[in-house]
Amino acid sequence: MTDRCLDVLAIGNAIVDVIADAGDDFLAREGMHKGAMRLIDEAEATRLYEAMGPGRELSGGSAGNTVAGVASLGLRAGFIGQLADDQLGEIYAHDIRSLGIAFTTPMRSDVGASARCLVLVTPDAQRTMNTFLGAAQRLGPDAVDPAEVADAQILYLEGYLWDPDEPRRAMIKAIEAAHAAGTKVAFTLSDSFVVDRHRTDLWQLFRERRVDILFANEAEIMSLAEHDSAEDAALAVAAEVPTVVVTCGEQGAFALSNGHRYAAAAEPIRALVDTTGAGDLFAAGYLAGEARGLGPERSLRLGAIAAAEVIQHYGARPEADLRTFAGDLLG
Amino acid sequence: MTDRCLDVLAIGNAIVDVIADAGDDFLAREGMHKGAMRLIDEAEATRLYEAMGPGRELSGGSAGNTVAGVASLGLRAGFIGQLADDQLGEIYAHDIRSLGIAFTTPMRSDVGASARCLVLVTPDAQRTMNTFLGAAQRLGPDAVDPAEVADAQILYLEGYLWDPDEPRRAMIKAIEAAHAAGTKVAFTLSDSFVVDRHRTDLWQLFRERRVDILFANEAEIMSLAEHDSAEDAALAVAAEVPTVVVTCGEQGAFALSNGHRYAAAAEPIRALVDTTGAGDLFAAGYLAGEARGLGPERSLRLGAIAAAEVIQHYGARPEADLRTFAGDLLG
Repeated sequence: MTDRCLDVLAIGNAIVDVIADAGDDFLAREGMHKGAMRLIDEAEATRLYEAMGPGRELSGGSAGNTVAGVASLGLRAGFIGQLADDQLGEIYAHDIRSLGIAFTTPMRSDVGASARCLVLVTPDAQRTMNTFLGAAQRLGPDAVDPAEVADAQILYLEGYLWDPDEPRRAMIKAIEAAHAAGTKVAFTLSDSFVVDRHRTDLWQLFRERRVDILFANEAEIMSLAEHDSAEDAALAVAAEVPTVVVTCGEQGAFALSNGHRYAAAAEPIRALVDTTGAGDLFAAGYLAGEARGLGPERSLRLGAIAAAEVIQHYGARPEADLRTFAGDLLG
Repeated sequence: MTDRCLDVLAIGNAIVDVIADAGDDFLAREGMHKGAMRLIDEAEATRLYEAMGPGRELSGGSAGNTVAGVASLGLRAGFIGQLADDQLGEIYAHDIRSLGIAFTTPMRSDVGASARCLVLVTPDAQRTMNTFLGAAQRLGPDAVDPAEVADAQILYLEGYLWDPDEPRRAMIKAIEAAHAAGTKVAFTLSDSFVVDRHRTDLWQLFRERRVDILFANEAEIMSLAEHDSAEDAALAVAAEVPTVVVTCGEQGAFALSNGHRYAAAAEPIRALVDTTGAGDLFAAGYLAGEARGLGPERSLRLGAIAAAEVIQHYGARPEADLRTFAGDLLG
């Protein structure tokens, strides 16, 4: 372990989630794929919002949720993401700072409205996401301070941000800074459609040994490797990425790390309420373990523990102090 | 029962709740009285927000919660309240309309920001409220359409709005319209400090027979009658108000109605999470019973049922369809 200011510094979409219950018939009528994320423009966001039920607003965003989990586990986290200078922006900034997370990206008034994700939770606790990226996709390279990256043990990048041009350039700048400083780079694929759109340049990134730890779910890793088996897909990716972590929903997760395979079962839960944030919190637990040098097996267990907490309530960030669940694992 | 467009039309503060967990030590440090509501200005709202933990935003406001309950019980409800033309205003308007509640008060851009209530929930599930009224207290008489009041069976008024001058005039206008049309007037005292500031004109309102149903908790009814027994206080008020309904927390509630006393026990619950909205939802159940002509005893039971649902989750509006809990009571 090095003595750096931050354990994990994340770059991600700064998004407020608007969470509402919805029936399967609503999803069908709207032609939505259950469990998927799709990007929508402002007009569609307005139309869909009017059609859906009453919401509860909670800060979200994949990497933001992950650093919330990292902070809840007692580690030092930072976040880089673009907000507009509006009320949703104030809510997001408040929520992330109140968790003790270093967040210094200035709000901007020239980037439209702050991002929001209309999350529809069906009775089976699945979440279907409709994201209006707004200001979040205007994150530019100026928001990345190479000195902050150099002062972090792990840089964590949200794949969703690989789509828009400005944030991708910001992330590439951060990767270069990490490479120069010996900061590990972790990347989450986020979405199989993102993978599909960027398969070539993602593989190039991996071949250049720019990514140390890759997070994916089964659909994402299969899309990346164009294999119809998650295990085979992970093996193929592991030829280029030192550690590949694959989450498999209620089947748990496995990791291929430097030639070894590790696995962890899902943690038992009392009641499944809302799966939003499961993958984000799994990454939080794993990254915390990685930052503390616990090795893949214990890191996977920490991931499973953090994910189990977040799926038992609405919202994608921990409500409980995750340290109480982590027990002796974190020492 | 008359054939009117609305069962219940409410006038209240249009407020978005910002709900955060807090320890008793935080309340002590801030000098807050647990369980109370206090009004704060914008500067204090900003300062306190920075000091508190991450929030979840949900539409609230006492009378707004009550009509949400009325709608959840399957009755027709309307709401009058002032929002600013901002993101919190959009959230509030969306949430109330998506419940099928008639809400037509135009947003205004000349009234500051939309109201918010910083709600601190302690581990004992008590809520302590800090309200920045903002636009809500700028509700004026122009927002009240006498024809809409005349078309409602019951007009429901939120005592919190008796403090600021413009909304009080709006409510007096509505009371006059109700009186002319045979619309029943229900009033909730909201807060013992409001009662203390307006004891004289409230009594005058009652003596003029302008209020048909009064809702209060024990502290409020004792403050109103300046008695140290809730029963004696209710008796004194019942001399001027046909129906007086007093909620007594986990002891249930009682009503004095046209010379008779009725009582209901609190509904059993599985787990107390957040008492925010308990009184508001009790009023919802009672008003639904009243609108359906069920009589005080069954109306009290409906109140207890609606309150029990809302205290078992965060937020002050029902998450479940209250009709499934009301069973045969509503017919």
